[in-house]
Amino acid sequence: MLPEAVLKQAAEEMLNYGDSGMSVMEMSHRSKVYDDIIKTAEADLRDLLSIPDNYKVLFVQGGASSVFAMVPLNLMTKNGKADYVITGQWSKKAFSEAQKYGNPRKVASSEDAVFNYIPKLDKSMFDPEADYVHITSNNTIYGTKYNELPDTGDVPIVTDMSSCILSEPVDVSKYGMIYFGAQKNVGPAGVTIIIIREDLIGNAMDITPTMFNLETHAKNDSLYNTPPCYSIYVCGLVFKYLKSIGGIEKMYELNQKKAKILYDFLDRSEMFRGTVVKEDRSLMNVPFVTDDEELNAKFIKEATAAGFVNLKGHRTVGGMRASIYNAMPIEGVQALVDFMKKFEAENK
Amino acid sequence: MLPEAVLKQAAEEMLNYGDSGMSVMEMSHRSKVYDDIIKTAEADLRDLLSIPDNYKVLFVQGGASSVFAMVPLNLMTKNGKADYVITGQWSKKAFSEAQKYGNPRKVASSEDAVFNYIPKLDKSMFDPEADYVHITSNNTIYGTKYNELPDTGDVPIVTDMSSCILSEPVDVSKYGMIYFGAQKNVGPAGVTIIIIREDLIGNAMDITPTMFNLETHAKNDSLYNTPPCYSIYVCGLVFKYLKSIGGIEKMYELNQKKAKILYDFLDRSEMFRGTVVKEDRSLMNVPFVTDDEELNAKFIKEATAAGFVNLKGHRTVGGMRASIYNAMPIEGVQALVDFMKKFEAENK
Repeated sequence: MLPEAVLKQAAEEMLNYGDSGMSVMEMSHRSKVYDDIIKTAEADLRDLLSIPDNYKVLFVQGGASSVFAMVPLNLMTKNGKADYVITGQWSKKAFSEAQKYGNPRKVASSEDAVFNYIPKLDKSMFDPEADYVHITSNNTIYGTKYNELPDTGDVPIVTDMSSCILSEPVDVSKYGMIYFGAQKNVGPAGVTIIIIREDLIGNAMDITPTMFNLETHAKNDSLYNTPPCYSIYVCGLVFKYLKSIGGIEKMYELNQKKAKILYDFLDRSEMFRGTVVKEDRSLMNVPFVTDDEELNAKFIKEATAAGFVNLKGHRTVGGMRASIYNAMPIEGVQALVDFMKKFEAENK
Repeated sequence: MLPEAVLKQAAEEMLNYGDSGMSVMEMSHRSKVYDDIIKTAEADLRDLLSIPDNYKVLFVQGGASSVFAMVPLNLMTKNGKADYVITGQWSKKAFSEAQKYGNPRKVASSEDAVFNYIPKLDKSMFDPEADYVHITSNNTIYGTKYNELPDTGDVPIVTDMSSCILSEPVDVSKYGMIYFGAQKNVGPAGVTIIIIREDLIGNAMDITPTMFNLETHAKNDSLYNTPPCYSIYVCGLVFKYLKSIGGIEKMYELNQKKAKILYDFLDRSEMFRGTVVKEDRSLMNVPFVTDDEELNAKFIKEATAAGFVNLKGHRTVGGMRASIYNAMPIEGVQALVDFMKKFEAENK
């Protein structure tokens, strides 16, 4: 979902952006007007996340799946090893991609319990010679998130924040690199954003494709070749919108309220229950089940008919999952809980 | 430029596509409604270009610059060598990317004359053991194009058609692989389309990032991860538009008329002249000069003031360049020629 105000503005500006006489889709990425768009988007994102000056913001393409390869190709280049914490399908994919390029190590995994928790991590578990530690901050499919960052000593943490970025404050300085596809909380699919500490750039392996070399994008302010201009423009509109409603602090407050409505109900319900251990619960993705497969199926069917779409849990987890990203209003969550209450009463 | 009809439709459908109740930007790429959008876009492109059944159409990200690496990673894998014809900056970049992954060879180059012609190519010049021959069909910066395909025997031709695709009919069966970024003649930046003969897929090097392995996209119908949904949707609108006006044959007719107006004037003018040898002239990009640098600068300044934007030639060529892609109307070309006539009369 995107804020309606953003979609309206995009529609209004479709044929004529500002006084340019043309659509953002038609602009040269080397034009002054487009340069303003991408620079303003970056400045607003820096503002929203208080990104320190020694971090670069890069707009790239190819989704987090592409960054899974960029990370080892660019960073696993000093000692050729890295530590991965496995908390779901995406971290597994990131790990498996890294195996092509060196010796990543699985430090811990919650696969033993279908990823319904974040492993307890202790500094002694990490290799001080690893080039980085990779984590997935929020796990879309399983509904977990890191509520505390592991202590990795001097080893930089690289994290995939695709499904939680902009949902709560982040202390960027605690990370070496943060990356996220835009399509969950930021803008339309097609742009991927990388926030990276400058000193980590510039050591890519020789076999790195030019477009996967972070230095290429850092040196050219993300304009080495034509960027996904329109997607970046819409991200910029979302950043402005977030600033206008009070920034990340305000968004976080709203997200906590929304999640609390749902989790409080799950904790009281005699039919439904959340699947994730309480301390690791995500603010964005809330998986839940009843203890009866048939009842789950009935619930999904009736909920879909009532207009609650995409509630089916991932096939590896089963049950249900509510995704309550930034753009989901509090009323939407309340309506879902009301529907669940009614369903519970009717199916006791 | 994009057809105004396409931009209008995109604006109208921004908040509600069809009866989906949501924007294309908000749809899950796994939804039925989005599946229709991407499948229809592919079917219409197949129809427009009469793409044979043994060719796959892949929607990827990262621009032609990414494909420069995908080509050797996926195709330079039998004998580890390939033949490159160098006709401009883009083929140079493609060649230099291939050098990372094997032994590409420069077969011929027109760099000796600032790329103002397409080298004469003879079958004997090509290595029959090369895994492929790489060419750039239309050279944006220099305004040349292949008006005849080289005979490479059994060696498949791979071509970058970023700046001429959909401008004239193509016999796809004569190529092993055709690729193009969308942003010149197809749609908004952010999607890159690959048309490839099926038997060429499946032999990627082990070091190939998953997202650069063409098999990943072929096996998953371009839905391995979230594609650039909105850009593909707009490309689909452009394909429908092209079909509605009479397809590629009609577009080609229009493009020939447009180019003829400009080239005829350049051939008659006593002040301006085209820079490219006649038989290799592009239909899309028309570089021209006067023999006086100061006059060039004066022309660009006055033309810009009169509303003719982006007329400055690339810094490596100097002078002027008119880009007359599909979406440029014949009236636009006529107006430019009228302006040039007036300028010539005033500056004799």
